[in-house]
Amino acid sequence: MQKPSIPKGTRDFSPEEMVRRDHIFDTIKNVFRLFGYQPVETPAMENLATLTGKYGEEGDKLLFRILNSGNFLSKVSTDELEHMPPAALATRISEKGLRYDLTVPFARYVVQHRNEITFPFKRYQIQPVWRADKPQRGRYREFYQCDADVIGSRSMLNEVELIQIIDEVFARLGIKVSVHVNNRKILTGIAEYIGEAGNMMIMTMAIDKLDKIGLEGVVREMRAGGLSGEAIEKLQPILTMKGKLKERFPALQEMLKNSPTGLEGIQDTMTILKYLKDLGMKARFDLDLTLARGLDYYTGAIIEVLAEDVPMGSICGGGRYDDLTGIFGMKDVSGVGISFGADRIYDVMNEMGLFENLGVASSQVMFVNFGPEEERYCMNILQKLRQERITAEIYPEAAKMKKQMTYANNKNIPFVVLIGSEEMKNGRAGLKNMKTGEQHTIDTEELPDEFKKNSRAAGG
Amino acid sequence: MQKPSIPKGTRDFSPEEMVRRDHIFDTIKNVFRLFGYQPVETPAMENLATLTGKYGEEGDKLLFRILNSGNFLSKVSTDELEHMPPAALATRISEKGLRYDLTVPFARYVVQHRNEITFPFKRYQIQPVWRADKPQRGRYREFYQCDADVIGSRSMLNEVELIQIIDEVFARLGIKVSVHVNNRKILTGIAEYIGEAGNMMIMTMAIDKLDKIGLEGVVREMRAGGLSGEAIEKLQPILTMKGKLKERFPALQEMLKNSPTGLEGIQDTMTILKYLKDLGMKARFDLDLTLARGLDYYTGAIIEVLAEDVPMGSICGGGRYDDLTGIFGMKDVSGVGISFGADRIYDVMNEMGLFENLGVASSQVMFVNFGPEEERYCMNILQKLRQERITAEIYPEAAKMKKQMTYANNKNIPFVVLIGSEEMKNGRAGLKNMKTGEQHTIDTEELPDEFKKNSRAAGG
Repeated sequence: MQKPSIPKGTRDFSPEEMVRRDHIFDTIKNVFRLFGYQPVETPAMENLATLTGKYGEEGDKLLFRILNSGNFLSKVSTDELEHMPPAALATRISEKGLRYDLTVPFARYVVQHRNEITFPFKRYQIQPVWRADKPQRGRYREFYQCDADVIGSRSMLNEVELIQIIDEVFARLGIKVSVHVNNRKILTGIAEYIGEAGNMMIMTMAIDKLDKIGLEGVVREMRAGGLSGEAIEKLQPILTMKGKLKERFPALQEMLKNSPTGLEGIQDTMTILKYLKDLGMKARFDLDLTLARGLDYYTGAIIEVLAEDVPMGSICGGGRYDDLTGIFGMKDVSGVGISFGADRIYDVMNEMGLFENLGVASSQVMFVNFGPEEERYCMNILQKLRQERITAEIYPEAAKMKKQMTYANNKNIPFVVLIGSEEMKNGRAGLKNMKTGEQHTIDTEELPDEFKKNSRAAGG
Repeated sequence: MQKPSIPKGTRDFSPEEMVRRDHIFDTIKNVFRLFGYQPVETPAMENLATLTGKYGEEGDKLLFRILNSGNFLSKVSTDELEHMPPAALATRISEKGLRYDLTVPFARYVVQHRNEITFPFKRYQIQPVWRADKPQRGRYREFYQCDADVIGSRSMLNEVELIQIIDEVFARLGIKVSVHVNNRKILTGIAEYIGEAGNMMIMTMAIDKLDKIGLEGVVREMRAGGLSGEAIEKLQPILTMKGKLKERFPALQEMLKNSPTGLEGIQDTMTILKYLKDLGMKARFDLDLTLARGLDYYTGAIIEVLAEDVPMGSICGGGRYDDLTGIFGMKDVSGVGISFGADRIYDVMNEMGLFENLGVASSQVMFVNFGPEEERYCMNILQKLRQERITAEIYPEAAKMKKQMTYANNKNIPFVVLIGSEEMKNGRAGLKNMKTGEQHTIDTEELPDEFKKNSRAAGG
């Protein structure tokens, strides 16, 4: 009998962890709702036709494929079986795969349900995704994404509101963050300005690594990628540009004056940042020309959020994509969205000790079980408490007192009620506060109010 | 470009459906908590070693298998490839599968985390499961289960509380149900009584189909299964036994007087039903000797719930299983649990029109967008409303009035605020009630209280 285990890169979540995760999910969900976003859910399994080719070659390799049911080889010849490369054979014996992110399924959803949807469509989605990534610290094969997207509106107001959502979520969670904003059109403009329009992706990918490999590394990558030394010379002052926005924007506009795309990107970014300034943000926010974001479907604004007090990398990011639904045959629908990384947010809050006052999803009170008589008597009181929405339980059997108390302790149950034959006679109950250890007796009739008082005090 | 679609047997959930499903999940979750159950979650993917052999041959066929990543054929020889039966080959190229139910993963969880768990362990779990079943009306390949189990206690109190949970959940959802209770030990006793102890499973499986195939059908099945005509004769009066509990129990005890197991089952069932009678149930509940429940890991009490007003089959069921964790090497741990069928409950509530007053997860108010000036002005008011936890949005661009109004209408947004240049000057706002169509103007300062009043009125 092998010791039971779960696949590497996956996790079980204990009651303690569940409370913390639900706190994060509920906070994000409530803020999404506050801004008029509506929930949808899509199946864990999508047709591979929907998923493949959307995440690049690397992404395709990381898809979890579902083996066709029944005789999955029926359509495969012996010859194919022997000579087909695994990747090709895989597509012959599996038609379904697990969701890799929430963006592509959402695009599929929008196209499939286009006739039922009122545009602009503001939807949020909080579900797990799966990637056959090499598991390592902080990287899992099953993890949750929390996405909000607007589709069918080109207004910068959407970018503004999504950044307001980011600001509100992290304020509520108690995480100090900085919001970095850039625009793909500016990067295009810069590529044109340095005379490397054709190498825009190489430039972007290199810049994207700045925080990891430093300026020298970026320069090395761009040179390796075929950018001219002159171009790289011209680029560096832009990447290192400092100063106030009202100085950097004009300087940038001067540089990109011959790039209509670049100027458009600057204009959009100015609109967004001006709005945020007027509305007032709790978080720091700034234009970051070194922000590129890997995924290539972004075409406009790009956003990235970093925790100020814990080095963790991006804990939230997003951007505008001009033709996401195009891949499913619905052209010219612009969308913009953000995605919260629940696992990294969890780790940040854990390191900052932000979960300490959260408590456990546990009963407010446990009744000690003294035997059949007392049990029957207590069950009626329990019922009254539960009718008052007070979470309560009784130890299911008349075990040793020590065992019952340990149970209450381990489950962090704040109060224990003791009703033995004596108390039964005179309608009294022993009430023990498990934190302070103090104990006193009260009338059983007073118990409901007692716990309502305490749960209010506990903010429960 | 093929029209986008999802795998058969799976579903997308629209905002309207999400509100309804969340209502069901939240109700169940809150009642679970009320009784001291704590949440856990397990990964969607389990090792096939954990899943296979737990659901019978049929079940194994219905498991969704995950194709190993990379070169999944590396460990398979050409010879095996050509001659291995698909089922055998499948186990060579896939090591993981999708969760088939929540019970086996829970058993695996308990054994794996036995040292962190305080027993008796009362856990609930609400997650999707996957079965490669033939899709048909009301049967899906991805569906949610809502389970509550206690593990590590033999006390009948657990059965009693689980039935109280069932009673409370369906009362809160507004579904009139009847709770059917039986005990596998009674069925064992009956098999002994009719001299067919060896054919207990055949008898059980046949009885299980009574409501579907009728008494004749059951008799036919038992005969085909090898039960003697005499045994079947002896069984029939038991299956059709009528009358009050206080008559049926003694009669049953007389019949099974030579079966210690049978008498134990009767005793346990009497304890449970007596408790329920004393505590008072909203739902009808009764001993049902024809209740057997297919899955064979049950060893004690078995429970099934039917909706009284809609023919839908079982919408909730459960029972006690001794030694579930034994399959993972942790012996003699008794458990009992129930599982709510969210999809059938959804269908029942839909047919009964119980969703009508539920509304949609939508904003309380939409601001019409009259242009850049007004937009900027409204954004500040929006911010104040949202600070008061009022869900609010503004149409993201200055589209035609008709288009903006249609948007508010389709999203079931109850109120629309209109602030044009005129209103801006004198700090007033047009407030339109989208249900009644009536419109009046108020001071923008009054807006927050206005909506707080309305949301209270709407119970929001």
